Amino acid sequence: MKTIKAFAPATVANVCCGFDVLGFAVDFPGDEVVLKLNNSKEVTISKIVGDGGRLPLEATKNTAGVAVQSFLQSLGVDQGVEIELYKNLPLGSGMGSSAASGVAALVAINELMGNIKSREELVPFAMEAERIACGSAHADNVAPSLMGGFVLIRDYNPLDVVKVKVNLDLYCTLVHPHIEVKTSDSRRVLRSSISLRDAITQSGNIAGLMVGLAQADPLLISRSLKDVIAEPIRAAFIPGFEQVKLRAIEAGALGCGISGSGPTLFALSSTHEASLEVGEAMQLEFLKSHLKSDIYVSKINPEGAKILAR
Amino acid sequence: MKTIKAFAPATVANVCCGFDVLGFAVDFPGDEVVLKLNNSKEVTISKIVGDGGRLPLEATKNTAGVAVQSFLQSLGVDQGVEIELYKNLPLGSGMGSSAASGVAALVAINELMGNIKSREELVPFAMEAERIACGSAHADNVAPSLMGGFVLIRDYNPLDVVKVKVNLDLYCTLVHPHIEVKTSDSRRVLRSSISLRDAITQSGNIAGLMVGLAQADPLLISRSLKDVIAEPIRAAFIPGFEQVKLRAIEAGALGCGISGSGPTLFALSSTHEASLEVGEAMQLEFLKSHLKSDIYVSKINPEGAKILAR
Repeated sequence: MKTIKAFAPATVANVCCGFDVLGFAVDFPGDEVVLKLNNSKEVTISKIVGDGGRLPLEATKNTAGVAVQSFLQSLGVDQGVEIELYKNLPLGSGMGSSAASGVAALVAINELMGNIKSREELVPFAMEAERIACGSAHADNVAPSLMGGFVLIRDYNPLDVVKVKVNLDLYCTLVHPHIEVKTSDSRRVLRSSISLRDAITQSGNIAGLMVGLAQADPLLISRSLKDVIAEPIRAAFIPGFEQVKLRAIEAGALGCGISGSGPTLFALSSTHEASLEVGEAMQLEFLKSHLKSDIYVSKINPEGAKILAR
Repeated sequence: MKTIKAFAPATVANVCCGFDVLGFAVDFPGDEVVLKLNNSKEVTISKIVGDGGRLPLEATKNTAGVAVQSFLQSLGVDQGVEIELYKNLPLGSGMGSSAASGVAALVAINELMGNIKSREELVPFAMEAERIACGSAHADNVAPSLMGGFVLIRDYNPLDVVKVKVNLDLYCTLVHPHIEVKTSDSRRVLRSSISLRDAITQSGNIAGLMVGLAQADPLLISRSLKDVIAEPIRAAFIPGFEQVKLRAIEAGALGCGISGSGPTLFALSSTHEASLEVGEAMQLEFLKSHLKSDIYVSKINPEGAKILAR
C-alpha cells in the first residue's frame, strides 16, 4: 500500500496590521503526518503523537481527518486512508496548530492521488477542516501553511488568496509563553465596530507593509507593523505583553505582535542573529511575569508544506 | 528679476480602497504658476486666470500664496515674490484643484531658491496651504502632485509619505460632471465609526491594490478597487453614480470610483484606447441624469509637478 509522509509549518496570522487578511509561514516548527492508503472505504486516524491525548481520534472531528475527507469527497472517491499525526505544534498557541495538521494531511493525500490540485486549490479543503475544528473557516493560517511566504486573503466571497512576493530576507522569532488562549475567547472580546480613525490607521499600515515587502524596505516594514484593532484588546490576555514587545524592539526586531489570537508572540528581524537575540530578550522579560516560554527561530518559509518521504 | 513657470497636475485621492491614505497624479490637467522674485518683502498674487473670479487674491487665503509664504518662513527669508496663477482645474471638482495651485507655486519657489528641498520635503508646506484653504491639512492630493505616481500617506503623526513603485502601465479617465460638491459637506456625511467587517474588507482591498501595483497584476488591481467606507455614502451626491460606474467597467475599466470627495469620477484602465472608451461611456451615462461632463484622459504621471520654463 502507498505510504507518504508530509510536513506543514506553523504560521503567523494577522501580522499586526493585517488583522484577518494576512498570514505568513515559518520554516519550523510544524506538524507531520504519515498517510497510508488501504482497502477500507474510510478515513481513520490510527494515532496522534505529541498532543498529550487532547485531540480527538475521530476523523470527523480532527482537522487532518476532515481535510482528507473533504478532499476525497470533492473527487467522488471512496478511498480508505489511515492517518498518523505527529503534533509538534502546541495546541491553542496561536501558531496555526490545527491548520498545520490539516494542511500536512491535505498535501499528503493530494500527492498520493497524483498531485491533481495546486496548493491554492487546496485552500478551501483546509478551510473546511478549520471550520469543523475551530468553528470558523478562516484561511489566514491554512493558506500560508499551504503556499508558503506571506499570503493575503483579500476576500472570502469569493475566496481571493494572493501570494505576496517578498524581496528581502526576514527572520521570525516565535515566543510561546506557557499559557493557553482559546481562539473563541480571543475573538469574543473584539468590538464589532471601530472608529473610522482606527480603520484609516490600519489601512495605512497594511498598505505600508505590502509596499515595504515589495520594495525591500525594512524600515517601512518596521513603521507599518502596528495594530490598532486587535492588539489593544487582546494584549490583556498576555501577561507582560507591552514590556515583552518593547524588549523585542530594543533587541533589534523590526516589529513584534501577537501571533494569531495568541498567546504566542512573533517578531520579525532582518538577520538570523537579531532574531536569536530578540527571542532571548523576550523570554527573559516573560520570566518577570513568572511565565516560562519556548522560542522558535527560523526564516520565513517560502514554499509552505512539503513531502518528506514517499 | 528671476522668473519661473511651473505646472502641477491634478490628483485622485482615496482611489476606492485607499480612503484618506492613497492618491495618484495624472499627466493633465493641472495648474500653472509664474513666479517672479522682486525687491518687496511680500508674497503677492498679481493675477488669477481661469477661476471665474472665485479665488481670493490675498496671498494668505490662497494655497499658492500660503505655500510660498510657509516655505520662505521656514528658511527665515523675507523674499518678495509675485505670483500669477493660471487655473486649469475646476474648483470643488475632487481633482485636487487647491493642492495643484499650492504645489506648482512651491516647486517654483524651491527652484528659484536653488532647489534646496526634495519633493518629499515640500509636502508639509503644501499641507499647510491645504489647511488654510480647505480647513484640513490632508496630504493625499499634495503628495502625489509633488512626487508623482501613487503615493501612500501611511501616517500623519509623524508624517510618513511613501512613493509606491508601480510596475505596469495604467491610464486614468477623469469624468467631471457639472455639479459641485464641497469637501466639507462630503466629509460631514461620513460616519465616525464603521463595522469591523467593513474595516477588514477595506484592509484586504488596499493590501490587494498595493500587491497588484507591485506585481503588475491588473486583475488583482481590478478586484481590489472597491470602497465600502466612503463610496456607499458619498455616491448619493452624484446623480447616476452606480450606473456610470457600471458603464465604465463594461467599457473595459479595471475599476472606477469617486475622485477625492467628488463629484469627479476616476477610472483606471490598462490601455489608452480603453481609457478613451471608458470616458465616452461614462459621459453618455451622465447625460441620462441630465448632467454634462468633461473628460480628461492621461497616463499616470510618474514625476509629478514640473518646471515649464526658466
